[in-house]
Amino acid sequence: MRTGITPAEALRIILDHAPGLGAETLAVPEALGRICAEAVVSARRLPPLDNSAMDGFALRAADCRGAAAERPVVLPVAFEVAAGDAGLRALPARSAARILTGAPLPAGADTVVRQEDALRRGDEVEIRAAPAPGDHVRRAGEDVREGDLVIRPDTQLSPAHVGMLVSLGRSFVAVRQQPRVAILSGGDELVEPDGDASGGRIVSSNSWSIAAECRALGALPVYLGIAKDRPDDLERRMRAGLHCDALVSSAGVSVGDRDFVRGVFEKLGCRLLFHGVRMKPGYPLAFGVFEGRGPLVFGLPGNPVSALVTFEQFVRPALLRMAGHTRLFRPTLEVTLGETLRKAPGRLHFVRVRLSREGGRVVAHSTGNQSSGVLRSLCDAQGLLLFAAEAEELRAGDTATVQLLDTAFLAAEAPGF
Amino acid sequence: MRTGITPAEALRIILDHAPGLGAETLAVPEALGRICAEAVVSARRLPPLDNSAMDGFALRAADCRGAAAERPVVLPVAFEVAAGDAGLRALPARSAARILTGAPLPAGADTVVRQEDALRRGDEVEIRAAPAPGDHVRRAGEDVREGDLVIRPDTQLSPAHVGMLVSLGRSFVAVRQQPRVAILSGGDELVEPDGDASGGRIVSSNSWSIAAECRALGALPVYLGIAKDRPDDLERRMRAGLHCDALVSSAGVSVGDRDFVRGVFEKLGCRLLFHGVRMKPGYPLAFGVFEGRGPLVFGLPGNPVSALVTFEQFVRPALLRMAGHTRLFRPTLEVTLGETLRKAPGRLHFVRVRLSREGGRVVAHSTGNQSSGVLRSLCDAQGLLLFAAEAEELRAGDTATVQLLDTAFLAAEAPGF
Repeated sequence: MRTGITPAEALRIILDHAPGLGAETLAVPEALGRICAEAVVSARRLPPLDNSAMDGFALRAADCRGAAAERPVVLPVAFEVAAGDAGLRALPARSAARILTGAPLPAGADTVVRQEDALRRGDEVEIRAAPAPGDHVRRAGEDVREGDLVIRPDTQLSPAHVGMLVSLGRSFVAVRQQPRVAILSGGDELVEPDGDASGGRIVSSNSWSIAAECRALGALPVYLGIAKDRPDDLERRMRAGLHCDALVSSAGVSVGDRDFVRGVFEKLGCRLLFHGVRMKPGYPLAFGVFEGRGPLVFGLPGNPVSALVTFEQFVRPALLRMAGHTRLFRPTLEVTLGETLRKAPGRLHFVRVRLSREGGRVVAHSTGNQSSGVLRSLCDAQGLLLFAAEAEELRAGDTATVQLLDTAFLAAEAPGF
Repeated sequence: MRTGITPAEALRIILDHAPGLGAETLAVPEALGRICAEAVVSARRLPPLDNSAMDGFALRAADCRGAAAERPVVLPVAFEVAAGDAGLRALPARSAARILTGAPLPAGADTVVRQEDALRRGDEVEIRAAPAPGDHVRRAGEDVREGDLVIRPDTQLSPAHVGMLVSLGRSFVAVRQQPRVAILSGGDELVEPDGDASGGRIVSSNSWSIAAECRALGALPVYLGIAKDRPDDLERRMRAGLHCDALVSSAGVSVGDRDFVRGVFEKLGCRLLFHGVRMKPGYPLAFGVFEGRGPLVFGLPGNPVSALVTFEQFVRPALLRMAGHTRLFRPTLEVTLGETLRKAPGRLHFVRVRLSREGGRVVAHSTGNQSSGVLRSLCDAQGLLLFAAEAEELRAGDTATVQLLDTAFLAAEAPGF
């Protein structure tokens, strides 16, 4: 087992072991946001028939050559066509059909004159502009033809794709599975959110924040509860998570005296690949895999900020890859430091920062106490600023990279028009 | 009723009529992503007690002045403390307590020496570095003190906030309600996704794509089905949506011969504020309000692209505002045109574009046929490029603004470290 590796090495090891999950078939409305697992080929032509793009009059362009407001061409209105009309008659020569948007073009007609360019007078219509063949006609198949590849595998399904799928007559679609993530915490000092927090006991908050992280990225959390600091209880709870795609524990994997967690991992068949990553917060991260079937095992540090920062850096990209995503990382921004930061060399620091726009720049300020126990400074953060391992100082005015946690920061203040 | 207004005027009218919804109380895990509707004030101190940030030895700094590797101070180990230990003894003078991460600091101790700087020998420990008072100690209340305002109203709740809320002993939290959105389509040519699409009939896809848009932004779609082109059926279905916060119809509000929809709106008490917006696609957009209680009414055009583009521009920001969001608009990007675009002056065009990064720039290319019936070119689009109303040409190499639909475009290729 390796120890004291860099965050980049840790990420590479983890992603090398994160398998893409298989497919499942869902009702189309439930597939929104999921990754398509099939090549969607159309069995239909859309639109199915030539039809009118406007309310107006269907006719032959040749019958209205030279028409103009001051020299209208007068045609008899042979019949009317509305959307959904089937079994249409053909249009007689030198006549027009009243037609509504979406209605099928009658045989013989080759153009539509908008009603703004026509004047209906009883059984006749004055055409006041000369149309070209094809004007205001939507051709059958102009959107989709039979046999077209309409949605490629690995596409994330948007609302427009949902509309397209149902247009093609699809009620179901194959998508990549969502990872199931077993979540476990451990420690005799931990209680559930509604538990008795007297005597220095604290709520097992990591399980709940990690479950929320899972939901936010489209994974399915399976909460295994709080293990007592005893090998038998830990083993029993871990076994309940072995059918999942990942197992995330958030305490008990550091080098403390009561660290029997690694022993339990190994008893269950999990091989730890590394323990200890040169980052702050988050050094005591462990990662393991099973030789045969079994979840990826992430032993996150117990401090609330360490747990969430290591989840962000390592668990989130792994789960996204398992779910079929190809874009695995938070947006990054180049920012200007709003204050000077200092640290000892040796570890990459993830500094919790607030962001503000000042002129064309984004300025980052620390959210305050950067202790790994201070969850509040993560609650208040919009991003994590990368303070390189060997650097000791970032000065006010320097530039740095921020991983953006609060994607609403990118939302525009105005629509652009 | 106004007609032929600009998109900016339409947006202003709509947002002026979009009310913020009230609060509801949810279990904390269900509140992820919602807008907090209360000022969360802590009834607890976090951490509850002074405790150790490391595995090591708790002692008095004064007892180890001058300690160094070559000149260690030897202290007896009085007892051990683990996380969750209650009813601790005080630490006798000139002694140390073995302590684990998170364990409460015994009375009398004022610092923790990391185990890396100590050497345990039976009942004694050699301290090999001189600690300062407070080293590796997390002070009670350093994260949160009783009475602190921890989460402000109108904050969008993140996974870290979920962790904070449960840490404070909160199982429930007040959040802003999600808008309920009644969705209706109309037209005798329309069928459900599993319906018979022969004879030129088409699937009522707008309802499903709009429902997906609602879900994606956190609103609750209520599907009212397909109304026949008859006032009585339309009225019956619309009445079923009057308890909702918004009603979105996606056909039948243009100026066609069978346009009785406005008549039904007015019979039900809805006052239309405008019809017709100088944009393409999407001109035949209508918007109305009820004098007393009643939903915002959006009459979207029936073409699939027109329906989704007008939803994006007008319905989405209104629903986000109702749900308590303050950031209402898609991220915008300044892009370089990859090809020359031309149009007639008079309307703002929303051009469906694909985006690619080339050097430091983002280059936009049209996704092809921009007919409002061609849903496929919206499926393939990552954004909507704004082609100003009075402009007639955007040349290859010009810059323009794109509203970003595919937020994954902003995801980073690498984590930044």
